[in-house]
Amino acid sequence: MAIITLLTDFGLADEYVGVMKGAILAVNPAAVIVDICHHIPPQDVGAAGRMLAASFAVFPAGSIHVAVVDPGVGSSRAIVALQAGGHFFIAPDNGLIAWVVQRHRPEQLVRIHNQRWFRLPLSQTFHGRDIFAPVAGHLSLGVGLSQFGPAFGQEDLVVLAQPDQPQSGVGHLAGEVSDVDRFGNLITTVDGRHLSDFQRRDPTATLCITIGSVRIMGLASAYADVAVGEWVALVGSRGLLEVAVNGGSAAQRLGCGRGAGVTITLA
Amino acid sequence: MAIITLLTDFGLADEYVGVMKGAILAVNPAAVIVDICHHIPPQDVGAAGRMLAASFAVFPAGSIHVAVVDPGVGSSRAIVALQAGGHFFIAPDNGLIAWVVQRHRPEQLVRIHNQRWFRLPLSQTFHGRDIFAPVAGHLSLGVGLSQFGPAFGQEDLVVLAQPDQPQSGVGHLAGEVSDVDRFGNLITTVDGRHLSDFQRRDPTATLCITIGSVRIMGLASAYADVAVGEWVALVGSRGLLEVAVNGGSAAQRLGCGRGAGVTITLA
Amino acid sequence: MAIITLLTDFGLADEYVGVMKGAILAVNPAAVIVDICHHIPPQDVGAAGRMLAASFAVFPAGSIHVAVVDPGVGSSRAIVALQAGGHFFIAPDNGLIAWVVQRHRPEQLVRIHNQRWFRLPLSQTFHGRDIFAPVAGHLSLGVGLSQFGPAFGQEDLVVLAQPDQPQSGVGHLAGEVSDVDRFGNLITTVDGRHLSDFQRRDPTATLCITIGSVRIMGLASAYADVAVGEWVALVGSRGLLEVAVNGGSAAQRLGCGRGAGVTITLA
Repeated sequence: MAIITLLTDFGLADEYVGVMKGAILAVNPAAVIVDICHHIPPQDVGAAGRMLAASFAVFPAGSIHVAVVDPGVGSSRAIVALQAGGHFFIAPDNGLIAWVVQRHRPEQLVRIHNQRWFRLPLSQTFHGRDIFAPVAGHLSLGVGLSQFGPAFGQEDLVVLAQPDQPQSGVGHLAGEVSDVDRFGNLITTVDGRHLSDFQRRDPTATLCITIGSVRIMGLASAYADVAVGEWVALVGSRGLLEVAVNGGSAAQRLGCGRGAGVTITLA
Repeated sequence: MAIITLLTDFGLADEYVGVMKGAILAVNPAAVIVDICHHIPPQDVGAAGRMLAASFAVFPAGSIHVAVVDPGVGSSRAIVALQAGGHFFIAPDNGLIAWVVQRHRPEQLVRIHNQRWFRLPLSQTFHGRDIFAPVAGHLSLGVGLSQFGPAFGQEDLVVLAQPDQPQSGVGHLAGEVSDVDRFGNLITTVDGRHLSDFQRRDPTATLCITIGSVRIMGLASAYADVAVGEWVALVGSRGLLEVAVNGGSAAQRLGCGRGAGVTITLA
Repeated sequence: MAIITLLTDFGLADEYVGVMKGAILAVNPAAVIVDICHHIPPQDVGAAGRMLAASFAVFPAGSIHVAVVDPGVGSSRAIVALQAGGHFFIAPDNGLIAWVVQRHRPEQLVRIHNQRWFRLPLSQTFHGRDIFAPVAGHLSLGVGLSQFGPAFGQEDLVVLAQPDQPQSGVGHLAGEVSDVDRFGNLITTVDGRHLSDFQRRDPTATLCITIGSVRIMGLASAYADVAVGEWVALVGSRGLLEVAVNGGSAAQRLGCGRGAGVTITLA
């Protein structure tokens, strides 16, 4: 088994994703390549980091996850490979991997450096093809992480602004919308554990979720727990608080998107 | 051989399709997963049903077709698995499967119920990941349909409004545009057999197809049977009457789309 | 190993790509199918030809590349299969293959004619499903090119207007923007060898790239060689001159796209 997933901001209108797959198959023709997503907004490292952390664990242990949202391609930014949570990851050292390592301390972490495993001649514009893909291919063939380059300290990883921590205040919890999905569901930075912790302040009270002009009382477990067209709040498939409209688009109804504030109180 | 196809309204901008694939591979890492389409308009059960019926038979017999357009996720709607026409299908019981069973009487049909085959803990927001995908994985490993739940009567399947039957009148046949493809071809609800039957009323007459202000005399067999920019009617790749402009977009030229009426007469 | 790549203008909103994959797997269930791109603008043979030539060589030798941008489907246009540069290609004879054969003289070239390898009954609207896919499947199983039809002369291939040759003038080289990628990078018809040749006129001079109102002095090797928001010119992943804005969209900034002229001088 050699499963390699791809997560990029390349889109599908160009040949870049197909070319990365070719470069993987040129090393390991038996690799099973799976797309997680290629429609990350161009150069949006945070969106990629959140999606990677939300997705990888469903794959079989030992899978290799390649994430290429890499505005610094060709600069001196590092590329890292790591093992964490029973999976392997290859990503630019630009903060993308923070959402994974925040929850899964790396068992091994290296800086990819050894050109022996690269596609040569090495371009400075498409490391996805020339470094990420062939390194993933060799990793899937059993080459050990330490073969790709020297150990790299977790504390040396680039950290973006502290990733997505909701703020806990007197009597409230404040987060924001981090992603909007195709259905217009508003996915927030508040995860289910934050809500449980907050609820413990008064286990008999009702969680009250406010976003823009909308206030929702209580958490549902399914979109269909409310009538079509009604507002609903629940912990969605990412394990994060979502605000949605059953059968409709919350984003359209509220006219809001990423960055919109969400406040949770007890009532 | 374990071919599993996916047909959803998830789009490709989120991680949902990739996550379903991970959940399949977690059960059967050797499954061959093929996308039919993920751009069904959100919650458009009919569009998915028509596409599934038009697509599945080209795959090898024994393939497993998973369709997730599921506005009722988390409600009491059933999920069914069936064998029909030599293929397997997994779909919510919301009418989606009607276009298949209308032509291929199920050899076996069950309600998916046995949590033994689910991904646990079971969410109420993403049954694609937690039920459809692992059940498809186990089915591809040879688990029998009856293992997934109790038999379900074909007559108990949810039926949408009678799917897509053109109306036969005195001297005419009336259907409508059901889908518009990327090329702007107008795909109708009138299939080739309807046309043959209708033609039998006067085998020497010419079929006359009218849509909006356009009247087309006779059926062609290829778009290129007419000059570039000219109107053409033919039985297309779905086996359905299509109205097209060779080298252009019929939808744009007519300014019409789904629901537009089409009338066939003999002249 | 049986790698089959697909390059079409089918988009992903319809079932056409999935159906082609089904038709391949029906012949060879062990084929590994990889998408290069399906978002070629409808019927844009040149865009497909350029992308195919830029992509195929990264795949393992012996891969089979199927390109279906085929406005003449159902007409008398030929479909050809060839071996060139160590790879196999199947394409309509409409000029698409010109960018490949211009650099890689075919070792063998046939017109696909023998219905034995087709999916029957043969439609006149979807040769991707009925001819290209099954022929690719059989080719991947080891059927020789000569089995598919008679030899075809390279000189008999349809040629579009001479593909993409920049014009060399007194003191300048003139090309144009041929493609714009997702990042807004402007990909030109001028390849790296044209630039090297031109530079030889005065090895000590600086290449000066002018497009619209923007003039860029010298070639960089990476987007990140300039500050974010600055203009940069480099030879990109296709081996072609690109004009870009680091971290931004050159296409948006200049308000230009395909067809815009680019002029190179020495200063």
